[in-house]
Amino acid sequence: MRYFIKFSYDGSCFHGYQIQPNLRTVQGELEKALSYINGKNRVIVHASGRTDLGVHARMQTATFDLDRNIPLYKLKMAINSNIGDDIHVYSVEIVSSEFHARFSSVSKEYNYYINIGEYDPINRNYVYQYNRPLDIEQLKRNIKYYIGKHDFRSFVSAEDIRENAIREMFDAHIEVDKNIIKFVFVADGFLKYQVRNMVGTLLSICEGKIEDLSIPKILELKDRTTAGRTAPGEGLYLERVNY
Amino acid sequence: MRYFIKFSYDGSCFHGYQIQPNLRTVQGELEKALSYINGKNRVIVHASGRTDLGVHARMQTATFDLDRNIPLYKLKMAINSNIGDDIHVYSVEIVSSEFHARFSSVSKEYNYYINIGEYDPINRNYVYQYNRPLDIEQLKRNIKYYIGKHDFRSFVSAEDIRENAIREMFDAHIEVDKNIIKFVFVADGFLKYQVRNMVGTLLSICEGKIEDLSIPKILELKDRTTAGRTAPGEGLYLERVNY
Repeated sequence: MRYFIKFSYDGSCFHGYQIQPNLRTVQGELEKALSYINGKNRVIVHASGRTDLGVHARMQTATFDLDRNIPLYKLKMAINSNIGDDIHVYSVEIVSSEFHARFSSVSKEYNYYINIGEYDPINRNYVYQYNRPLDIEQLKRNIKYYIGKHDFRSFVSAEDIRENAIREMFDAHIEVDKNIIKFVFVADGFLKYQVRNMVGTLLSICEGKIEDLSIPKILELKDRTTAGRTAPGEGLYLERVNY
Repeated sequence: MRYFIKFSYDGSCFHGYQIQPNLRTVQGELEKALSYINGKNRVIVHASGRTDLGVHARMQTATFDLDRNIPLYKLKMAINSNIGDDIHVYSVEIVSSEFHARFSSVSKEYNYYINIGEYDPINRNYVYQYNRPLDIEQLKRNIKYYIGKHDFRSFVSAEDIRENAIREMFDAHIEVDKNIIKFVFVADGFLKYQVRNMVGTLLSICEGKIEDLSIPKILELKDRTTAGRTAPGEGLYLERVNY
């Protein structure tokens, strides 16, 4: 029986999504809870993708197989009562054995938040504090160049050795709510650090460190060193996985 | 020289506002930073009032005296660089020696947030998770009875031994934003646990444990046992102190 879960978590409490020995990770916590529910037999959780240290998820998805048929509301309760209060499974469904949280997804949305106002201690783990002036119109002019089918090699961590960096960006825009600027990215897939590098590059452009309107050229060069810095993890949210 | 500061903090990181031996408190952290700035001579910080364990402040105020005349922007930087990232001083002014953060204030606003939707792990320390159905119209009908000049003895912690529990409530209303219900209270002063007891009583009314529309009677009885439970601290914010 293949189960499909939707869940959210506070990334500031974990050493990232992926399981690691001796570190508290989202996958590690979920597998521990599920293995306990499964009579102490290991259950492998396959997520839609990883998130890094400090990165949050409003909707992350995963599948796993259990030999037992557990009523869905009971399984939801059982998982939530066996994990910390910093993860929450809000939906459990049964899916066919061909369904895969990653390969069956058609697109994902990531949001990135920066605060350009006074530092807010209550939000310190949930938004990137940016203490320089920022030209919103310049951000808007530049962010639209990410839209379309591109080779995003220039925006990929050197750690990501996947050969294919071609992804289709369906949407890239910003929304402004007082001092909070929200970057929205929707694509058929994302590479390691891609969103943080795309945001960091936009900020580098606004700071005059990278030429205005140069994103098309950076994409063409396929060279990580031509893009800007990596924005920190605390501002990033996996917002939604679409199927 | 008397200084007047406005600051915010994440209450989930402190054992309340008031200084206590061997516990991390907001007052303790501020006095430690200021005493360091003041050449290791103790500086006593007088706030507009205390907040309890887990309670947040978007705008708390305090005064303190220093022998030295420090440029305001430098003092702001000096305090912020000597305290944790869970407190932030956003304004420093010089005031006359008659000015007092508590006695000079004319009113205060507290907000209380409850989430009636799915549990949100990212917000777990910043909103009270309420998992029962809630009749918003019943809340609105009942909350308005707090407005006016009343003896709030029935809503005061037994620990608060001040003799006078008469306070004037200038405003009491709720605002609804999707699944988040925000309770707004503005008064010339608040007693210990008063807001949490007022919110808890409204919830007890909605749960049918206390009679509908009985707040006038509860106020009249001046008996803590006639009111409802104390809502937890994580949903409460000192929003503003008015002068």
